[in-house]
Amino acid sequence: MNAADDGTTIPSAVARHVAGRADRVRARLDGIEALVVSDLTNVRWLTGFTGSNGYVVLTPQRLTLVTDGRYGAQAVHQMDEAQVAGEVLVGLSSAAITAHLDALTAGFETVGFEAAHVSFQQHADWARAFHTTLRPTNTIVESERRSKDDAEIALIAAACRIADRALAEVAPHLADGLTEAEVRNRLETRMRELGASGPSYDTIVASGPFNSALPHHRPDHRLLLPGDLVIIDVGALLDGYHSDMTRTFVVGEPTAEQAEVYAMVLAAQQRGLAAVGPGVAAKTVDVACRDHIGDRGRGDWFTHGTGHGVGLLIHEDPFVNATSDAVLQVGDVVTVEPGAYREGFGGIRVEDLVVVTSDGCRVLTAFAKDSPCLPSPPTT
Amino acid sequence: MNAADDGTTIPSAVARHVAGRADRVRARLDGIEALVVSDLTNVRWLTGFTGSNGYVVLTPQRLTLVTDGRYGAQAVHQMDEAQVAGEVLVGLSSAAITAHLDALTAGFETVGFEAAHVSFQQHADWARAFHTTLRPTNTIVESERRSKDDAEIALIAAACRIADRALAEVAPHLADGLTEAEVRNRLETRMRELGASGPSYDTIVASGPFNSALPHHRPDHRLLLPGDLVIIDVGALLDGYHSDMTRTFVVGEPTAEQAEVYAMVLAAQQRGLAAVGPGVAAKTVDVACRDHIGDRGRGDWFTHGTGHGVGLLIHEDPFVNATSDAVLQVGDVVTVEPGAYREGFGGIRVEDLVVVTSDGCRVLTAFAKDSPCLPSPPTT
Repeated sequence: MNAADDGTTIPSAVARHVAGRADRVRARLDGIEALVVSDLTNVRWLTGFTGSNGYVVLTPQRLTLVTDGRYGAQAVHQMDEAQVAGEVLVGLSSAAITAHLDALTAGFETVGFEAAHVSFQQHADWARAFHTTLRPTNTIVESERRSKDDAEIALIAAACRIADRALAEVAPHLADGLTEAEVRNRLETRMRELGASGPSYDTIVASGPFNSALPHHRPDHRLLLPGDLVIIDVGALLDGYHSDMTRTFVVGEPTAEQAEVYAMVLAAQQRGLAAVGPGVAAKTVDVACRDHIGDRGRGDWFTHGTGHGVGLLIHEDPFVNATSDAVLQVGDVVTVEPGAYREGFGGIRVEDLVVVTSDGCRVLTAFAKDSPCLPSPPTT
Repeated sequence: MNAADDGTTIPSAVARHVAGRADRVRARLDGIEALVVSDLTNVRWLTGFTGSNGYVVLTPQRLTLVTDGRYGAQAVHQMDEAQVAGEVLVGLSSAAITAHLDALTAGFETVGFEAAHVSFQQHADWARAFHTTLRPTNTIVESERRSKDDAEIALIAAACRIADRALAEVAPHLADGLTEAEVRNRLETRMRELGASGPSYDTIVASGPFNSALPHHRPDHRLLLPGDLVIIDVGALLDGYHSDMTRTFVVGEPTAEQAEVYAMVLAAQQRGLAAVGPGVAAKTVDVACRDHIGDRGRGDWFTHGTGHGVGLLIHEDPFVNATSDAVLQVGDVVTVEPGAYREGFGGIRVEDLVVVTSDGCRVLTAFAKDSPCLPSPPTT
């Protein structure tokens, strides 16, 4: 059911084999005996549970998922599928859920909560109800979640192949008189037909001298016209994991300036890719891209960061920008996506998704990027 | 650009005329001189701003939107378009944004923040940085946002018409050998072609004796088969506003039990609609539906609440269920959606979106619901 029709087998069963993750988190619980995990992405990563309401209580001996009446059966099923040893408790109201959390943590002196993912109000309610004192913690689960295992990388790579293929089918039609929104619709429909559960994010199709100059333009009803730059930023969602890729095209023959800026952005992106490796400061990758563009006098055309981590979230640690203090490590999955934008000219961005390996990185996105010229229509 | 191609004019310009909302919120600031609004839906409702990072500081005299470098120009443009009198401040880091918030509130003795929308960590950071003491507040903006004005109702009604029309086009093909996912894809593509910016939520297509028995089933690759019950829960998103509707079909002729349960759910839903009106406790509407189903010996088939508010969020106040303490008021937009589910039989749900009026309610969703029999294919 989850197989893309090019014969790709999507390793859902493997990806959901998340049983060892609780111990990875326990090893990080410095001075904390028990942890209440409330961020739903962290909950999913630890248990496979995908519902919209759930908390994990992690103690040295037990993992318990607490959820509401809508999700009890689903939680049992998903934790089973993920082979996670743990139990599910159902609370039929938020007071009942709080009572479960209190009972599960009551025996411990030091109980942590996720300070960035619990609201001030939620903490106040817990502080009143709990029999133990809660201690704020930060990014404990995220620090482990950041590094992807082989099954996660295989899923992200499969998501990349879906987006590659959808773009390969749609790009030859960019000169056929479509609007931005129509191109977006075709891409998203094809990704679903190819096995994606949906787009990884709102697909960007940004065309012409003004729309493509906005890095986060939302597709509208503008027709793609001869001479247009067209930025397409597209990814697939597969079993919760995201892909992310940008390619820029020209409808027709590029002008000299379009060709020059394209070559500059592509070279900057290749320098960024070359800089990626374990032990490398993320900001070094940003500098590699930024300096290349700055040296050509267009530094102020590059108006955003170079990249970000990708996994169960489309934007997650590590961030690749000038102020990042992250150091890349094996298993990080990050984008490298410099761009150059100017109102009246338009914009160009080239983005790949890569996984950091022991000797550098492996690029997961495969669509050709050597030129902004449109690929030939597929022969049918 | 935003007009559906049936000639519907979508009143974006009117809907964005949000200038008076700040004063409605100011009138609720009981004992609070200034309010920092951080929930992005509340920020959008107050200013028209749709970026992913922004805070509104509301004082007796000023409204200021503080955002980051990506969104400065967009914020100015969107507040202009919404005719909101206010200023935009840009902070290039989160520390700079905090400094702006501090400076804007420093002169006031009582400064409120949204306790349910500010994390424990964020509050701790603010508490260190601010020169004034922050006071927790709850649902100040939400209490005003809940009641929709005419322009908002017109937008939601236009979103309903898009979903009505997409379903009218797709439903006649449910017997054509499609999978759940293919039906979902056709609905979502047609809604976009009809002017929606996307689906209002993940469209549900749930078929057969097991999938349709799960109220929140996600469409998969199951083929729709003769005899199936098919629940379709579909809405359109238009300029930020959501629609929400569910219809249930039978592929072929209904069995006696399918017809009986359908008639029961429909009658329950009509009783729910008849109960809606200003001054009515939301739980009364729930009881009206639930008692009808319970009286027929199927009370345990109705496993969820009767409805919820809809607006800039797909689920918002007021909630319509057995534990709700909300009282309906003119301008509330809520769903009425009882259902009956049993593994092996399947499920049936009928849902309309209504706006509370002075004499009851007006139903915004128009697709026929008198029978689960499939409509005839449109004659082309």
